[in-house]
Amino acid sequence: MNVAIVGASGAVGQEFIKVLQQVDFPVDNLKLFGSARSAGRKYAFRGNDYTVEELCDNDAFKGIDVAFVSAGGDTSKRFAEVITRHGAVMIDNSSAFRMDADVPLVVPEVNGDDALNAPRRIIANPNCTTIQMVVALAPINRLSEIKRVHVATYQAASGAGAAAMDELVDQARALSAGEQPKVERFAYQLAYNVIPHIDVFQDNDYTKEEMKMYYETRKIMHLPSIEVSATCVRVPVLRAHSEAIWVETAEPVSVEAAREAFSSAPGVVLIDNPAEKQYPMPLFAADCDPVYVGRVRRDISNERGLTFWAVSDQIRKGAALNAVQIAQYMLDKGCFRH
Amino acid sequence: MNVAIVGASGAVGQEFIKVLQQVDFPVDNLKLFGSARSAGRKYAFRGNDYTVEELCDNDAFKGIDVAFVSAGGDTSKRFAEVITRHGAVMIDNSSAFRMDADVPLVVPEVNGDDALNAPRRIIANPNCTTIQMVVALAPINRLSEIKRVHVATYQAASGAGAAAMDELVDQARALSAGEQPKVERFAYQLAYNVIPHIDVFQDNDYTKEEMKMYYETRKIMHLPSIEVSATCVRVPVLRAHSEAIWVETAEPVSVEAAREAFSSAPGVVLIDNPAEKQYPMPLFAADCDPVYVGRVRRDISNERGLTFWAVSDQIRKGAALNAVQIAQYMLDKGCFRH
Repeated sequence: MNVAIVGASGAVGQEFIKVLQQVDFPVDNLKLFGSARSAGRKYAFRGNDYTVEELCDNDAFKGIDVAFVSAGGDTSKRFAEVITRHGAVMIDNSSAFRMDADVPLVVPEVNGDDALNAPRRIIANPNCTTIQMVVALAPINRLSEIKRVHVATYQAASGAGAAAMDELVDQARALSAGEQPKVERFAYQLAYNVIPHIDVFQDNDYTKEEMKMYYETRKIMHLPSIEVSATCVRVPVLRAHSEAIWVETAEPVSVEAAREAFSSAPGVVLIDNPAEKQYPMPLFAADCDPVYVGRVRRDISNERGLTFWAVSDQIRKGAALNAVQIAQYMLDKGCFRH
Repeated sequence: MNVAIVGASGAVGQEFIKVLQQVDFPVDNLKLFGSARSAGRKYAFRGNDYTVEELCDNDAFKGIDVAFVSAGGDTSKRFAEVITRHGAVMIDNSSAFRMDADVPLVVPEVNGDDALNAPRRIIANPNCTTIQMVVALAPINRLSEIKRVHVATYQAASGAGAAAMDELVDQARALSAGEQPKVERFAYQLAYNVIPHIDVFQDNDYTKEEMKMYYETRKIMHLPSIEVSATCVRVPVLRAHSEAIWVETAEPVSVEAAREAFSSAPGVVLIDNPAEKQYPMPLFAADCDPVYVGRVRRDISNERGLTFWAVSDQIRKGAALNAVQIAQYMLDKGCFRH
């Protein structure tokens, strides 16, 4: 397989390089692309050094089978034709194409087959908070259709990039030293604070991040009428998002059946032993692949309700890993020429 | 008024001293009580020094009108008779008596009159997470009865006492310095982490903290069938709890009506201007009295639903301030002999 990574110097780009070395994915040739600013940088991959090329309107993608793209929505839109014109499949991490009817939005554990029908050769990787939620919703939905979801998120600084993680650590250091903390990456100081504001506000006073969870869940799960009300909150955590989730199903689902479904679901690891203080936490989920689920219990306010807690590293499963898993799924189904 | 503070050296006890100096509450005489360990310590109040006396089975509460008690449930149970035997009213911050039928559980903005009927001369101060939630629920409930609540909390370290705040700051410092952080006050490292576990687990796999929000809300709001499902989470914040709340009302309530109700509700300050990035946050709520409400919007999953975000300093309104407000309410109603 001839693989390209676009946005190679970013937090997700770097994670692509890491994930491709760790998982069983055949890479015959690798090309790295980036902005003029990052062109010329070198990154090691399986013992060789690769130099970042500037992304231009040229034929650099000739011969590429799959391009993992994470350089922001504008770049994705501007270069989609350049990337795909010679037959490459573009797996795009931005929100640029997610809701386009002719672009599949894929989480392999949930709707892998959607990737097999991509007329524009573009496949969209969902938003990180949505990915980890639908991986956890899918096993419950297989027991009884989910009608309604309430979700409150606890999102890590890394969702805003590597510089945002540095800023959080530096804020904590500055405050320890009695200095004024620098605030650049978030609207307010994040250290010792939580900020109920991720992405821009929409007309209905939800944020774009919250509405992504609404629309993307419908599309990925093929549930055009599932109702999702989200409150998305940034917390002073470095890596891995957490979510408190309530679901209402068409028929009651027992806690035992739910736990069993989580235990056997692809991509899910159940950590649910309160007596031994075992439940998922972001501190232990960083750099890990699964969506960890725990605190499974009845929604005591609703006889058709369940509630649980889901934690996942949003740079891995929420971004790079999910995209690579899409390519793996397509490879297994014989979608690529090589 | 002759006032006693029991547990004067603790985080809440210290806050009692502060609040009593700040609010308009007449203190003619003040007595401070504590354990043998803290007996002898001196604290300043309105220009005079007061020495902590050891809490014993004696007549030290003779002449006291009101005792603010925050020394843990066991101490409250053990000394309730000693404190009240000569006629003092005991306003108890522990969970020892909260669900007793003959002990009112009071948030003055919601059910102040309940304090006027306290046959045992004991009045219970609710759990901090419940206090700030019911202050925010009450104005909506006056528009249409609330049937169901989903709430996810973001609780500060200070909920576990002053030493827990120090531990969080020291963990951040240790991690900055490349040292191993000390973990004593919480089950796990709290810096750069969130912990979905506050107080002990119950048979239904909810924590005691989560079930307090269920039972105490019913009692305070006089709504014996309101359903509350809570997920309580500790976050690396020093002071002030945040809550993402969804309510379902008997009849639909518009966002405009809800905003108006919050604006005019006692104890509530509405901060809700997303376009200007104005919403409540714990960083700015520390050491403040109100329950701040913002992010008010429709629950897009439920036509009879609303969702909003509430932040309050849980040592003030969640503990010391609420208790003093109970005493103020009773004083205004002529409950005290002086």
